[in-house]
Amino acid sequence: MRLPAFSDIEAAAARLAGFAVRTPVIESQRLNDLTGGRILIKAECLQRTGSFKFRGAWNCISRLDVRDAKGGVVAFSSGNHAQGVAAAAQLKGLAALIVMPADTPAVKMANTRRYGAEIVTYDRASESREEIAARIAAERGAVIVPPFEHRDVIAGQGTAGLEFAQQAAEVGAILNDVLVPCSGGGLTAGIALAMEAKSPATRVHTVEPEGFEDHLRSLKSGGRERNARMSGSICDALLSPMPGEMTFAINKPRLGVGLAVNETEVREAMRFAFAELKLAIEPGGAVALAAVLAGRIETRGRCIGVIASGGNADAGLFAEIIGAGANSE
Amino acid sequence: MRLPAFSDIEAAAARLAGFAVRTPVIESQRLNDLTGGRILIKAECLQRTGSFKFRGAWNCISRLDVRDAKGGVVAFSSGNHAQGVAAAAQLKGLAALIVMPADTPAVKMANTRRYGAEIVTYDRASESREEIAARIAAERGAVIVPPFEHRDVIAGQGTAGLEFAQQAAEVGAILNDVLVPCSGGGLTAGIALAMEAKSPATRVHTVEPEGFEDHLRSLKSGGRERNARMSGSICDALLSPMPGEMTFAINKPRLGVGLAVNETEVREAMRFAFAELKLAIEPGGAVALAAVLAGRIETRGRCIGVIASGGNADAGLFAEIIGAGANSE
Repeated sequence: MRLPAFSDIEAAAARLAGFAVRTPVIESQRLNDLTGGRILIKAECLQRTGSFKFRGAWNCISRLDVRDAKGGVVAFSSGNHAQGVAAAAQLKGLAALIVMPADTPAVKMANTRRYGAEIVTYDRASESREEIAARIAAERGAVIVPPFEHRDVIAGQGTAGLEFAQQAAEVGAILNDVLVPCSGGGLTAGIALAMEAKSPATRVHTVEPEGFEDHLRSLKSGGRERNARMSGSICDALLSPMPGEMTFAINKPRLGVGLAVNETEVREAMRFAFAELKLAIEPGGAVALAAVLAGRIETRGRCIGVIASGGNADAGLFAEIIGAGANSE
Repeated sequence: MRLPAFSDIEAAAARLAGFAVRTPVIESQRLNDLTGGRILIKAECLQRTGSFKFRGAWNCISRLDVRDAKGGVVAFSSGNHAQGVAAAAQLKGLAALIVMPADTPAVKMANTRRYGAEIVTYDRASESREEIAARIAAERGAVIVPPFEHRDVIAGQGTAGLEFAQQAAEVGAILNDVLVPCSGGGLTAGIALAMEAKSPATRVHTVEPEGFEDHLRSLKSGGRERNARMSGSICDALLSPMPGEMTFAINKPRLGVGLAVNETEVREAMRFAFAELKLAIEPGGAVALAAVLAGRIETRGRCIGVIASGGNADAGLFAEIIGAGANSE
């Protein structure tokens, strides 16, 4: 297992130039006033396909030798990774097949198909998506693009951290902490590597939904801990069962304490993002902002980086959350 | 009546540096694919106070001699200009008083008060806001900051155009057309002056809600035409009765044909911005995007600039519009 190094992130940045969005960093006077600090928000919801996932997917897929991937690429995901892989494969001119649970919301399937991907469904209760993906990849001569346990994927996600360090410097700030929405740990690992090289004073923290805080517990215990549940959070993008082996090997020695937020705090953060930042952030993408708003980390006199990792919110749920805020005011 | 010149916009840009946001330009592969062109969106909804109005307000208020404005500043507005003026006055350390219709939604009053402004209400049917503002300003020794008929206000709004021309060049584009949500014409006039100097091949167009297309008709007839109605559009930010004298003197010789969109198209554009761009845009701020999506201008093979001028949408209305999209999918 060769772990990615900072040089892999620099190489990824060169590959992503002109394909991925250098997402803006947004600062809100209101948020600074509320927290007594300086809060910089990296708006990855404005990334191609609506989340940071395109970065890792493109870094991985763009460098494939087409002769090795005659059957295209295969991925398993019900959400943002599916769209990132589908869009990257389409750009590269490769076929993409995504293995999705049969109960995936229609809108997410439609979004994935829009990038030209084929979808194979499976039954969550009785089938293994990893096995289905492996079988199809073998049959087709396709390459599997995993969601986080892959050097190129982690390096690609790390470009968000590289940009963030540069963008903070451009506005005269040094990030004391960076808060990263965390599922399998790939985005966190990439950002931790980038900060170590480019902003070594910065402490990186995972943020997870309560009940799915496997990183928080793993960082405490020193071993990879598993979540008790696999579903039951509005943060549908953050439900990986446990930290990845590769990602945890990177994260364990580099991260600060893990943070967790509850669903009420996530909804509040989504309403804040809508009303104050004018951004649509999906539940899983809003946990880092939620941690700041809920006071999970010291902000007074400090500069805190927040990753808003995705914006692919279900319209009905988003309307319900925003509308609830309107009624209570 | 001395009209602003391009040099006034350059001076405004220097005053705004470090205070206003250099709002990002957002490009969506999906929107490019749909239109067959290259669509660049200047996201002024991400501006301080949620709309471009802070630019003009700060350019005007920051250069006031405090001795001439012992009583602070006075403005009349029920929306974005009120917030822009209040925030700019607070930054400058001046008192702000805003004259608002008594039936202004509570949330807009609260937003304005948040920036430290005092609010005086009036009855739309029986009172004149201009007269009330003039009387209060005289009593207090305060300076009136008009919403568009003012050289510094127009020059301030023009900085959005100056940035847009630079940002288009940075991504290797030349804007064929720029579409601007238009009410009194101040933002349009500032952008027209900036484009004339920095991107002379660019044609600037007003976009208005149907029924309130006073600029469209005025540009056709050559004289300032008045709208028949003063209310009855979801685009609450775009209900000025007619083009300003100063703004129309700038706009008349410089603009392309005026465009108009209906309410269904505005709602569709707001849903598109939410789902594809992850931006919260208010109805009046979405008319330029609506014009592109509704095919009101040739996009095939062309580069079109779209101003998303504000994001201060009422949460209840936004939820209703987004939720309606969810049900129909």
